[in-house]
Amino acid sequence: MLPKTHRQVRLKSRPVGIPEAHHFEIVAAPLAEPAERQFVVHNEFLSVEPAMRGWVNAVANYSTPVAIGAVMRSYTAGEVVASRHPGFKEGDRVMGQLGWQEYAASDGAGVRKVRETDLPLSLSLGVLGLNGRTAYFGLLDVGEPRPGDTVVVSTAAGSVGSAVGQIAKLMGCRTVGIAGGSEKVKLCRDAFGYDAAIDYKAAGSLSDAVAASCPGGVNVYYDNTSGAISDAVLPHLAVHARVVICGTASVANWDPPPLGPRVERHLLVKRARMQGIVVFDYAHRDEEAVARLAAWVREGKLRYREEILEGLEACPDAIAGLYRGENLGKRVIRLAQG
Amino acid sequence: MLPKTHRQVRLKSRPVGIPEAHHFEIVAAPLAEPAERQFVVHNEFLSVEPAMRGWVNAVANYSTPVAIGAVMRSYTAGEVVASRHPGFKEGDRVMGQLGWQEYAASDGAGVRKVRETDLPLSLSLGVLGLNGRTAYFGLLDVGEPRPGDTVVVSTAAGSVGSAVGQIAKLMGCRTVGIAGGSEKVKLCRDAFGYDAAIDYKAAGSLSDAVAASCPGGVNVYYDNTSGAISDAVLPHLAVHARVVICGTASVANWDPPPLGPRVERHLLVKRARMQGIVVFDYAHRDEEAVARLAAWVREGKLRYREEILEGLEACPDAIAGLYRGENLGKRVIRLAQG
Repeated sequence: MLPKTHRQVRLKSRPVGIPEAHHFEIVAAPLAEPAERQFVVHNEFLSVEPAMRGWVNAVANYSTPVAIGAVMRSYTAGEVVASRHPGFKEGDRVMGQLGWQEYAASDGAGVRKVRETDLPLSLSLGVLGLNGRTAYFGLLDVGEPRPGDTVVVSTAAGSVGSAVGQIAKLMGCRTVGIAGGSEKVKLCRDAFGYDAAIDYKAAGSLSDAVAASCPGGVNVYYDNTSGAISDAVLPHLAVHARVVICGTASVANWDPPPLGPRVERHLLVKRARMQGIVVFDYAHRDEEAVARLAAWVREGKLRYREEILEGLEACPDAIAGLYRGENLGKRVIRLAQG
Repeated sequence: MLPKTHRQVRLKSRPVGIPEAHHFEIVAAPLAEPAERQFVVHNEFLSVEPAMRGWVNAVANYSTPVAIGAVMRSYTAGEVVASRHPGFKEGDRVMGQLGWQEYAASDGAGVRKVRETDLPLSLSLGVLGLNGRTAYFGLLDVGEPRPGDTVVVSTAAGSVGSAVGQIAKLMGCRTVGIAGGSEKVKLCRDAFGYDAAIDYKAAGSLSDAVAASCPGGVNVYYDNTSGAISDAVLPHLAVHARVVICGTASVANWDPPPLGPRVERHLLVKRARMQGIVVFDYAHRDEEAVARLAAWVREGKLRYREEILEGLEACPDAIAGLYRGENLGKRVIRLAQG
């Protein structure tokens, strides 16, 4: 029996830059039985990720902005609790873009059955979800790492960065992580196996620290930040380097774009490449990525950290919290089940 | 009989930024008969190109800076007038990096025989030389144009840009040229067949002009300038666009790099790529490029403009003149023969 109502987190007003708690509201909404060829998912985990900033801003982006008054877009993982869809049955564990809400109806579009039943369900939002797949495709397809390459990763202890660093090691690369604060740097070294880790908050000159850690230059720079960290890395690119533009966490507002040192001369002199990666372009290869990532997790070769917040009430401030740098792993929100 | 002495243009002092006339001096030097396995070339044409700025500046670059007191590095074309080399004989027409001087001894390294005897020798410094090959490899290998793509070219009437625009047309693309002044814009339309040409000096908002000329976005941007022109083009990239970084003519000094709007968000949102091209990386494919370029020239499908200055005395100011924008075609210097 489905409840008659459930709760949702809706976008209340349009942020410029980082979405804060006051941009959202929690409201009750009616919950209907599934229509023909639909099913209803009871969400157990809701995802929180930096990209959500882009999803709610009005600036041109790779996805249509969430409408004011609409349920906040989010990946979720949960269980099918009612179904009139031939492909999904009660008890199936699924993940998809089902939004910040307790229950969600779906026709199956973009919903993936979670087949890794031996692994925690929350991983399908993290190391087996958007984060792991972003790391996988961004590093392997755009970064094209070769054995012996030096791979530098910004937000190296983050949920994408930590996977990038470990996959690069699996590919035979030397890895250098850049993170903020001694705790994250320690995680880079101890949990994620980076060969070197730099605390950008403590390094006198970050550029000098990168140069010292990369005596042969930087072959791949996996960039999650833009800003001052990239400015310190780009002068040290090796010839034919690849820069993967995955995120711009250090820039609060792109309208208008902030100024920085022009990059063209680095790219020209080093015959280097900068290229953006958006994981949705690789949806047709998701099963390949999840299978390989899950195998590495089972073998203990791909470690991850999660930070689990409790209850829908944690949602509104959760994105701003990421930008405050307060999480030490993939941030997910667990909803009470029962 | 070789003369006992000849004249050379040597680098007298190290420029910061654009090399001016006073950075060079013309001196007489002894000329020896060729040693065993050497030959001597009588230079007929000396090349002048924007890249020479980089060759004389001390900043890290893709080639070792020309030493103070050394003959200025340059491509030249001429005739073998004495030889003790089994691969080259008197009367052979050759081109190579033989320097700003009347005669040059060579062991053949980097020297190419000019086989296109039906075409003017000077073309081996322009549309069949560094310029044409840079356009060819930069556009085809880095830009990866596809039929129907919109290709935007900066310094569109220049010796590289004009070849890029025409090769792009040959590949089935729509071409939009950006140039400075009505005379160059007219050249773009009338001589080089651009579908649209924008005068960046006259356009009220260059960004609006690019948007109006590229309603479906910019699929390939072949960038010879960096600076304000690039800032106006990059916001209009199409999804999966390719930006070819070929030159940075609008930036006088890269030490330190000037500031500009950060590009990461464009690259991320559009999953676009920026990549540097240096033609020397493609030396192993020069014969392929020259053969195709020469065929297009013969068929009248690849047009070019030359500006021929007379005499070695024209050398010292010739690079600065390029940066003043005074040339309307590939600038070469012709030396008296006989």
